[in-house]
Amino acid sequence: MSAFPIDLISDTATRPSAGMLAAMAGAETGDEQRGEDPTTLALCAEVARMLGMEDAIFLPSGTMCNQIAFLVHCRPGDEILAAANSHIFRSEGAGAAALAGAQIATIETESGIFTAEDVAHRLRAPRDRSPVSRLISVEQTTNFGGGAIWPLQVLADLRDLAQAEGLVLHMDGARLMNAAVGADVPAADFCQGFHSAWIDLSKGLGCPVGAVLAGSHEFIRRAWGWKHRLGGAMRQSGVLAAAGLYALAHNLPRLGEDHEKARRFTDLLRGTPGLGLSATPPETNIAFVDVSATGQSTDQIAMTLARHGIRLNSEGRGRFRVVTHLDVSMAEVEEAAFALIAAVERPGYA
Amino acid sequence: MSAFPIDLISDTATRPSAGMLAAMAGAETGDEQRGEDPTTLALCAEVARMLGMEDAIFLPSGTMCNQIAFLVHCRPGDEILAAANSHIFRSEGAGAAALAGAQIATIETESGIFTAEDVAHRLRAPRDRSPVSRLISVEQTTNFGGGAIWPLQVLADLRDLAQAEGLVLHMDGARLMNAAVGADVPAADFCQGFHSAWIDLSKGLGCPVGAVLAGSHEFIRRAWGWKHRLGGAMRQSGVLAAAGLYALAHNLPRLGEDHEKARRFTDLLRGTPGLGLSATPPETNIAFVDVSATGQSTDQIAMTLARHGIRLNSEGRGRFRVVTHLDVSMAEVEEAAFALIAAVERPGYA
Amino acid sequence: MSAFPIDLISDTATRPSAGMLAAMAGAETGDEQRGEDPTTLALCAEVARMLGMEDAIFLPSGTMCNQIAFLVHCRPGDEILAAANSHIFRSEGAGAAALAGAQIATIETESGIFTAEDVAHRLRAPRDRSPVSRLISVEQTTNFGGGAIWPLQVLADLRDLAQAEGLVLHMDGARLMNAAVGADVPAADFCQGFHSAWIDLSKGLGCPVGAVLAGSHEFIRRAWGWKHRLGGAMRQSGVLAAAGLYALAHNLPRLGEDHEKARRFTDLLRGTPGLGLSATPPETNIAFVDVSATGQSTDQIAMTLARHGIRLNSEGRGRFRVVTHLDVSMAEVEEAAFALIAAVERPGYA
Amino acid sequence: MSAFPIDLISDTATRPSAGMLAAMAGAETGDEQRGEDPTTLALCAEVARMLGMEDAIFLPSGTMCNQIAFLVHCRPGDEILAAANSHIFRSEGAGAAALAGAQIATIETESGIFTAEDVAHRLRAPRDRSPVSRLISVEQTTNFGGGAIWPLQVLADLRDLAQAEGLVLHMDGARLMNAAVGADVPAADFCQGFHSAWIDLSKGLGCPVGAVLAGSHEFIRRAWGWKHRLGGAMRQSGVLAAAGLYALAHNLPRLGEDHEKARRFTDLLRGTPGLGLSATPPETNIAFVDVSATGQSTDQIAMTLARHGIRLNSEGRGRFRVVTHLDVSMAEVEEAAFALIAAVERPGYA
Repeated sequence: MSAFPIDLISDTATRPSAGMLAAMAGAETGDEQRGEDPTTLALCAEVARMLGMEDAIFLPSGTMCNQIAFLVHCRPGDEILAAANSHIFRSEGAGAAALAGAQIATIETESGIFTAEDVAHRLRAPRDRSPVSRLISVEQTTNFGGGAIWPLQVLADLRDLAQAEGLVLHMDGARLMNAAVGADVPAADFCQGFHSAWIDLSKGLGCPVGAVLAGSHEFIRRAWGWKHRLGGAMRQSGVLAAAGLYALAHNLPRLGEDHEKARRFTDLLRGTPGLGLSATPPETNIAFVDVSATGQSTDQIAMTLARHGIRLNSEGRGRFRVVTHLDVSMAEVEEAAFALIAAVERPGYA
Repeated sequence: MSAFPIDLISDTATRPSAGMLAAMAGAETGDEQRGEDPTTLALCAEVARMLGMEDAIFLPSGTMCNQIAFLVHCRPGDEILAAANSHIFRSEGAGAAALAGAQIATIETESGIFTAEDVAHRLRAPRDRSPVSRLISVEQTTNFGGGAIWPLQVLADLRDLAQAEGLVLHMDGARLMNAAVGADVPAADFCQGFHSAWIDLSKGLGCPVGAVLAGSHEFIRRAWGWKHRLGGAMRQSGVLAAAGLYALAHNLPRLGEDHEKARRFTDLLRGTPGLGLSATPPETNIAFVDVSATGQSTDQIAMTLARHGIRLNSEGRGRFRVVTHLDVSMAEVEEAAFALIAAVERPGYA
Repeated sequence: MSAFPIDLISDTATRPSAGMLAAMAGAETGDEQRGEDPTTLALCAEVARMLGMEDAIFLPSGTMCNQIAFLVHCRPGDEILAAANSHIFRSEGAGAAALAGAQIATIETESGIFTAEDVAHRLRAPRDRSPVSRLISVEQTTNFGGGAIWPLQVLADLRDLAQAEGLVLHMDGARLMNAAVGADVPAADFCQGFHSAWIDLSKGLGCPVGAVLAGSHEFIRRAWGWKHRLGGAMRQSGVLAAAGLYALAHNLPRLGEDHEKARRFTDLLRGTPGLGLSATPPETNIAFVDVSATGQSTDQIAMTLARHGIRLNSEGRGRFRVVTHLDVSMAEVEEAAFALIAAVERPGYA
Repeated sequence: MSAFPIDLISDTATRPSAGMLAAMAGAETGDEQRGEDPTTLALCAEVARMLGMEDAIFLPSGTMCNQIAFLVHCRPGDEILAAANSHIFRSEGAGAAALAGAQIATIETESGIFTAEDVAHRLRAPRDRSPVSRLISVEQTTNFGGGAIWPLQVLADLRDLAQAEGLVLHMDGARLMNAAVGADVPAADFCQGFHSAWIDLSKGLGCPVGAVLAGSHEFIRRAWGWKHRLGGAMRQSGVLAAAGLYALAHNLPRLGEDHEKARRFTDLLRGTPGLGLSATPPETNIAFVDVSATGQSTDQIAMTLARHGIRLNSEGRGRFRVVTHLDVSMAEVEEAAFALIAAVERPGYA
């Protein structure tokens, strides 16, 4: 058990439930590298279906999904367009450059959402000395943009642009299922016209390990080569895939509760002097709370909360990122909100 | 269950046992990326201890262990010395070049074992235009060399050379524990003077997924950066690490039985006209059987055996690679040997 | 001869003069790869001295200088901080990513000049998943920032930050000598505390081919390895180096004339309705002219000017970049200014 | 002038002649990056024609020709088949791995020439985990194989194999013109069916700098992107290209004389006790002389010869590589042979 009974640091903090563990133990398995793990095959088929893609591949992490997509779609010297606060630019160790040899041209945007017009401005004329504009990467929902949902129309405009300009569309779907539930839109609708997209199993869905990357048959065929090269090819991965199938059946329908918890959390905070919140309630399970006007640092407040068994994630510039999930109940979220208010109003309260 | 009750294609075919699955379900877990998964930490500590290294890191596969070692030890333009029939040259998608930008200079050797003298010949004089001789990679045991064990003296000579020339020593320990058991030598003795070494959990040890890479504190610190970049950073990896700890306790001591099975298999075959075997019995759990003098192709023979529920791995040049493991009993191995003899003596027997 | 007698498209348009060609023909030469080309050695020594560095290396282009600096200073996964309108981000084919595997984090700035504070904001906390903040790249003068000169104080602040944070400082000195002449500051003063810097010979200095990269002995030693790998190692490069030595003796002292021409050009234009100029006169030999308020596109105006033998460089968003140099006289620059005014005032004049 | 009046270390030792320097000084030039250098364009057209290719590109070195060919033809993870003693494996800083991310599978062969059968053995079955067999690289003539000429029939067989297997054929033509002259075969005939090939200008042709890479229009279009990225894009390269055109007109026809000199050299040595020579006379301008049976090291002998103004290239294993060229006359070659005989027969003679 965590040292923090109320751990809001990330939805990656979820632990596999008893039911999930039972599913894992009961999984039929085989060597996935020979295409003989039936559970992994079933999970891939299910995710491909959900995202409206031809095929899918199981991988140990969402980061590997992004990196393999870039490796398959891009050649060294290509350019990727993405938000400046995207996970691929901030939190993947400069992998796009280190592995695919691709440069990321960033678009500054608070919410992490950009438009076809933003992209159009940044497309390079085809010159020998220019990076080759190749791929648009969309992060659904936007992690460091506060869990915002890309609207269907914005995505449709990007599709039109991509088609017109011969660009590739990739979706970092770390929290795509939160978007689907939050906007009540089928995941496949968000993915329409995209050349690749993936979902993470180890966030709100509550699995211990894994993500599933989907695309065309040809894309997945080539992704397998990179799965081997990067060391993502496993053996009886069915033990992990079984958790994924369990999560799609049991944890997916309840993602909406996480969104309610995030909204409840910010509702409770709203009005507390010194706390900065975005004007609108969280769309999904992520909220940012700016404490820079409280006179206390995030470290000070975090230490106070830690004494009450609560953990928040300091973003380093006076902000906390709060992420709700399966393993924190509504009551605990409320307790965390009250504790945060107390910590701000009575510095160092015990 | 496999379509092949007697599957000798590889020791990667092992499936997690009931005891192992129970250990996995009971594992204490946390987010490994925050250093909070106690089971993963325990496994890493145990493997570091076994290999006589300072620290270790859990990874989804042995291939990722090799690739990360090269990425940490080498810079683009460096040269790695390895056997021409090594896994890193044949079966990792040219990853050393694709990821670390390192060239592999190969040494031709039937057994996969080479000497300090072989290496000394190939070291480059330091010239601006030359690849930079950097790393010696040893595969213990030698997979495509027939599961041979590198003798301690050969390794000692390589250490002396490496030290004198400022080279890095890396051990691909996919079957290092087979070597330790087969030669009755502590794994740490094989690893003495090596800068990195790893063991695979998903081969003879019978785990579904995972490998553990060990080295100095500084090496492991830098390996973590690459674990993230390559997408090997997971979350509650304790479910997999628990299988590893279980395997070290329960399956490691019995690896010797696999070696006996391999020897029994070749003993039974020896003398059958048309079958080529190495002069000496297998040292560990791998045997090669050359059927090119039988008048039948490996495909023909494999099809005959398949009808009896037996699977062997065709190496493509008239040879089968036979690998014994946990999930095939001595009786089944004997059955496979008799079936192979029958298939050779009575083509197409049913 | 060019189809454009008055070619203001770039200072790369200069052609070697008779004196320079004579110097080239008279050069003492040898194989530079064996360190036996005396003229190349002399040029490298001279540039190292001018920039206050220990050593230098001759290369076929400024782009290779930048790329080799990144390859020596960085490892894959590192991050470079540079202006969004820098040459390394816009015009080197995403080489930093494609070759060194390094990500460029860009700083938006009109002039191309950023401050230590701008950098400090963007430094990454050292985390396993984060890019590794490694290098600050300064472009002196700023090409797409309008030929602006980085002030000594801004560079001193960057040095302090770099030292405090363990960062590497690199100077893209494509027009460093223009800065030195324009600010009347020795080039070595601009380079103080920098780990690498280079000058281009084929721009205002009027040579046909070449650039010289300078740094510490150890840096240059490693740069030689990359010079070979990238294919920049030549043979009797003394024929090119002789042009460089000639240029330093004859063309360097006259760079100030190019700056006067640029100022004269913008002075003449100032006040013409529809033409947008920066508030202050050009600091060196580059000026931007915004024609988007004229009702004509840059293409239309360029075509009109072409008929008068004048060429300007369209930057694509309603702007021309005008670069003065050795091969365009003051009278020709004035002629170009008058022609531009006429083209704007009397669309399509002939 | 060299410290060695008789310099047989390499044909790269040639210096531009008076006629060549005059051609360089008189060259019409422009910015090659804008396609405006008429002399460079003329040289490229001429080489494309000679090699029977659609188009060509001028580059600063042969190494860049090889590296760009690999970068255009290959993707990371691909495999190149080449001789173990090829220049690309020994003397380009592991560039194929460092830049293109491609692995070189080497074929051991004394002469540097291998057959379609040698290649066929090494082709990988298409598996997710295998390197992707992509390109065959032929070095015409074989530098470290003693200047041997690939026979047309061997090349024809490689073409058939490449076509059947979908492989790319590349020719490192550092001394292709020596082969053409030596075998009295048009260079284009050697290049038939090849996807890329290049000639070096700075070896037997006597230019100071440069090489020309040829291929299809599409290949050259993509090569331009890499020319920029690697830093090979120059400006008024016509000064160098003019030397190339001069060399094709004046120095190409006389390459046969270099071959006669090499044969004369070995004829004179033959029979001297202790000197090892290949059984057949040199086919072109390279000869190896093994002195390991003389009781002296190459260093000792080289020092003796140096006192007589003669330089040979020690290959490090008791062998000298002797390369004849434009700047060493037949009389000087004879003098070198007699000096070598004397040095061997009378150790340390003065």
